[in-house]
Amino acid sequence: MNAKKMEKYYKSIKKVLMDDFMGFWEEKHVDPIYGGYLCGFDRDGELFFEDKSVWQQGRSLWMFSKLYNEFGKKQIWLDAAKSGYDFINKYCFDENMHMYFRVTRDGKPLVLRRYYFSEAFAIMGYVEYYKATGLEEVREKAIALFDLFEKYYTTPGYFPPKVNPETRKYKGHSIVMIMLNVSQMMREIDDNPRYDAHIDNCIDTIVNQFIKPEKKALLETINADGSFVDTPDGRFINPGHSMETAWFLMREAIHRKDRKLMETAIQVTEWSLERGWDKKMGGIFYFLDLDNKPVRSLEWDMKLFWVHCEAMIALVYSYMYTKDKKYMDWFKKVYKYSFKHYPDPGHPEWYGHLHRDGTPISQIKGSDWKGPFHNVRAFMVLTQLFEDILAGKELEF
Amino acid sequence: MNAKKMEKYYKSIKKVLMDDFMGFWEEKHVDPIYGGYLCGFDRDGELFFEDKSVWQQGRSLWMFSKLYNEFGKKQIWLDAAKSGYDFINKYCFDENMHMYFRVTRDGKPLVLRRYYFSEAFAIMGYVEYYKATGLEEVREKAIALFDLFEKYYTTPGYFPPKVNPETRKYKGHSIVMIMLNVSQMMREIDDNPRYDAHIDNCIDTIVNQFIKPEKKALLETINADGSFVDTPDGRFINPGHSMETAWFLMREAIHRKDRKLMETAIQVTEWSLERGWDKKMGGIFYFLDLDNKPVRSLEWDMKLFWVHCEAMIALVYSYMYTKDKKYMDWFKKVYKYSFKHYPDPGHPEWYGHLHRDGTPISQIKGSDWKGPFHNVRAFMVLTQLFEDILAGKELEF
Repeated sequence: MNAKKMEKYYKSIKKVLMDDFMGFWEEKHVDPIYGGYLCGFDRDGELFFEDKSVWQQGRSLWMFSKLYNEFGKKQIWLDAAKSGYDFINKYCFDENMHMYFRVTRDGKPLVLRRYYFSEAFAIMGYVEYYKATGLEEVREKAIALFDLFEKYYTTPGYFPPKVNPETRKYKGHSIVMIMLNVSQMMREIDDNPRYDAHIDNCIDTIVNQFIKPEKKALLETINADGSFVDTPDGRFINPGHSMETAWFLMREAIHRKDRKLMETAIQVTEWSLERGWDKKMGGIFYFLDLDNKPVRSLEWDMKLFWVHCEAMIALVYSYMYTKDKKYMDWFKKVYKYSFKHYPDPGHPEWYGHLHRDGTPISQIKGSDWKGPFHNVRAFMVLTQLFEDILAGKELEF
Repeated sequence: MNAKKMEKYYKSIKKVLMDDFMGFWEEKHVDPIYGGYLCGFDRDGELFFEDKSVWQQGRSLWMFSKLYNEFGKKQIWLDAAKSGYDFINKYCFDENMHMYFRVTRDGKPLVLRRYYFSEAFAIMGYVEYYKATGLEEVREKAIALFDLFEKYYTTPGYFPPKVNPETRKYKGHSIVMIMLNVSQMMREIDDNPRYDAHIDNCIDTIVNQFIKPEKKALLETINADGSFVDTPDGRFINPGHSMETAWFLMREAIHRKDRKLMETAIQVTEWSLERGWDKKMGGIFYFLDLDNKPVRSLEWDMKLFWVHCEAMIALVYSYMYTKDKKYMDWFKKVYKYSFKHYPDPGHPEWYGHLHRDGTPISQIKGSDWKGPFHNVRAFMVLTQLFEDILAGKELEF
């Protein structure tokens, strides 16, 4: 590929990462009063709500620590990480050590849910913060929280499922994907065979159950026995989610030098874009139905930035592995769409949510769901991948 | 007002009611296999999911019975009502008599929620079905279910609230509005002073707490003591909901010959439209923030048909009471927008959900939320109101 173009991608991505994204979050994210991370920012960064998302606390602890570990030892990043670490430990667990979903600015409990994604993000944060600090206390907290996470994951009905399991036993993609990702991280700080065992299991479930090659899709919901459910839930496709899982699988494939797994993940990426790209108006749809039946969710045709972030990562890996130009062509398409529609010139950060036609639905820069996670993570990974490409480094298989 | 124009409204509304709406639902709604009402219809009325919404079962029992009671004694409507009545009694209650939120086509339990709106709609259905049949058994069921509904309503924490009440004690508009509406209906079949007592209470809460004249708004969420909460929840405005409550209040004002209440409800309607009408693209927004801060929900700028239905009812009542042309001008605006954007020529029924710019988001004709409730109810009420207007009947105060 054209080195100049690669250089251009590298520079623009790194610049957006450090200026547009981190320039904003370094200034606004840490709560100067109570610690932890503030979430609700309007177009220009004014706080329009104060409550704190617990997902966000874990995700941003991870992000600041990761930046500190891999993008230069800036004290401001380490301090920001510490603030989140302390807030999580002090305010985000209930008396049974189950984590809240939302707390007030000063840490009072608001919402507790029957899911354990808050735990997943906190573990990720602990892992990365342990790498930043080397503090044994942090590592211990990561392991103890993974113990709980593992218990919830392996105990059917620990949290009562939403849909009556006597009537319909569903299996969801999200929790398997997150178990995969959390185990990949834990493995790096804890020498315990359980993580590889979980990863084996997750890969097996994703590859042999959620991925349906005959349908050219990675599904979000299947029957407990792995079979296809012909309902809107069973036909539901989330291209952004599929491509996020795809690059988690790619990383595992690289780790294991498993070409077959790599090729499966590339295939998922390709299906997701072929199906998900809006040929009329550009951008990647949020949700689709496997059989092009209606999607019940009214958000289905929105263009969310995070979806495009996950696609870009999966595409650069796909290109690095295959050297096939078609993946860089796809990358260029997604990159161009993103750089054209999401920036908000004259205002900080980028938009997160567009109508189908590319006009912004909302100009918020932060909310419970739109924090510096998918975008900063993607732009960190992309920066590193383009560095490797420019340095002539190959994926090792 | 111009009688010809009124005649035109009357005829077009009645035609849409009987042809576009009822033509579709008479044919498709009743499940020929298991009874009850099917919900998931694509553009041309093909079933794209089979699960049944319990809200919908109660709402459509109400609708078919109402049609039978007030629009001609068609056997098909009575049979359709009976089908829903039997399905509800057989399949929609759990062992504690709490109603499900969703069941399978053949009546197996799927989702149970910690709310009791399913109960509210079933009570409405029972009331109207009792009027259609005169069966004492139905009246008894209505009273027994209201007893439960009343217990849930008056027992704080009977169902644990979503937001931790030790941290933040909220009061929501929806349940007060529905208690008002259910009590108005129960009063007609049960001679018990409790209904008027509940209505007094609901009116007091709505008029003196949810309606904030200094903010020119009816709010959806307030503190338990009635005070304003300066959070996105507290600033949240749902113009369609406000106008729905407005015409419930107008009906009560007519019942009580209470001019002050009537004028308050007209005021709410006016505020809702001044604030909610999209001056750029037409139509009424779904959600707004009191202070024009961002709304977190990504659906905020969608144009939903039900919102326009509620507006039309409130506006015709406002006109009938005041004789002020401005309300018919508003009506015309909402009517024109609706008749231009929601019909789907060459296909049955109307769209329910548009983007801000008026293009359809989805072409579904039925889902858990889009059934023949708001639209059929509105077009029944409007048909009757225009009949009164044409007959020169006045509201009696």
